Amino acid sequence: LTFHYPNGKRYAAQSTYDQKTPSNLSFANRGMTLEEDINASNDFYLKAGSAVIHKKPTPVQIVSVHYPKRSAAVIKEAYFKQPSTTDYNGIYKGRYIDFEAKETRNKTSFPLNNFHQHQIDHMSDIRRLDGICFVLLRFTVSDMVFLLDAQHMLDFWDQQQDGGRKSIPRQFVEENGHSITVGFNPRIDYLKIIDKIYFNNKTETL
Amino acid sequence: LTFHYPNGKRYAAQSTYDQKTPSNLSFANRGMTLEEDINASNDFYLKAGSAVIHKKPTPVQIVSVHYPKRSAAVIKEAYFKQPSTTDYNGIYKGRYIDFEAKETRNKTSFPLNNFHQHQIDHMSDIRRLDGICFVLLRFTVSDMVFLLDAQHMLDFWDQQQDGGRKSIPRQFVEENGHSITVGFNPRIDYLKIIDKIYFNNKTETL
Repeated sequence: LTFHYPNGKRYAAQSTYDQKTPSNLSFANRGMTLEEDINASNDFYLKAGSAVIHKKPTPVQIVSVHYPKRSAAVIKEAYFKQPSTTDYNGIYKGRYIDFEAKETRNKTSFPLNNFHQHQIDHMSDIRRLDGICFVLLRFTVSDMVFLLDAQHMLDFWDQQQDGGRKSIPRQFVEENGHSITVGFNPRIDYLKIIDKIYFNNKTETL
Repeated sequence: LTFHYPNGKRYAAQSTYDQKTPSNLSFANRGMTLEEDINASNDFYLKAGSAVIHKKPTPVQIVSVHYPKRSAAVIKEAYFKQPSTTDYNGIYKGRYIDFEAKETRNKTSFPLNNFHQHQIDHMSDIRRLDGICFVLLRFTVSDMVFLLDAQHMLDFWDQQQDGGRKSIPRQFVEENGHSITVGFNPRIDYLKIIDKIYFNNKTETL
């Protein structure tokens, strides 16, 4: 199943509507989407009590709802809305955490058309208000996941607006991002990277 | 229109699906729901650059989607899901903000059945992680809005589990909460209260 936004852009989050993360997680990553991996990791963090980070529900414009007797209300007509924020936010060590997660099959660069202006504006606002803001990028073919601070995203976005390149070179991501080893539980341990790059740095500058 | 969860509980957020906040806001509060007032206030904060706080989209379980040629995907069957968090979260002065907003027509107390266990657990987690967490309660008949720290909610909830009362007395809310004057723009200036009770206290104890 593939959903599309009214603008024709593929909607990537639908695969988890009907399926739950399997309780017997296989170590191999094949077949798990980035979103499923992150949801499982957030679940792990929540149960461990270390962070509360959730994926926001997909925004939907509801047009028609039916109320059958003796059963749940059924939405009979609704449309996908463009989100006005990133997909994930929450709290870790008292700080506000905000990120977007995207994957690409491209091997040499990360196309910027995976993002839209609303998300970019949102990330810019979050940074200005001193939130921890980043993107998680997965190169699916090599199954490599990187955390890249939002400021780099914003820089590339600005350059693109000025006629610059339409993607972030993989080499840039490797040199300026932080590689995350895909493991068992949590599958994508991005808090470990956050500790290193946001909390340690913070301490050093205090 | 009134939606109900599968458990029969009324779903209170539906009124904004189809209507936008009117651009010519009337000063009188009559007719505006608490949610509409908060969304308008959050919009004001966002544009002023002081905070980024959004209502989370209503979680929906999508069962069937149609893809008409040359037009947007239509969701043909979906159901309301119980949210696993509070409705609002975001960032203010670098801190994580999280709250739930509820209104009652009851004049003398605020019924606890406006909340559910998931939200209570979530608020408890947020407090433990040092987030700013509270509820905004409106007594609609007198149009009085109060901010009450989540800890009070949690205390009443625990007492209820032990056979205690099923509502928070209005007098308790008046004495332990913080009254918010309903104004023009922002309509419900809850950041002013947050400044007073969370940031000033913070400074004093440092």
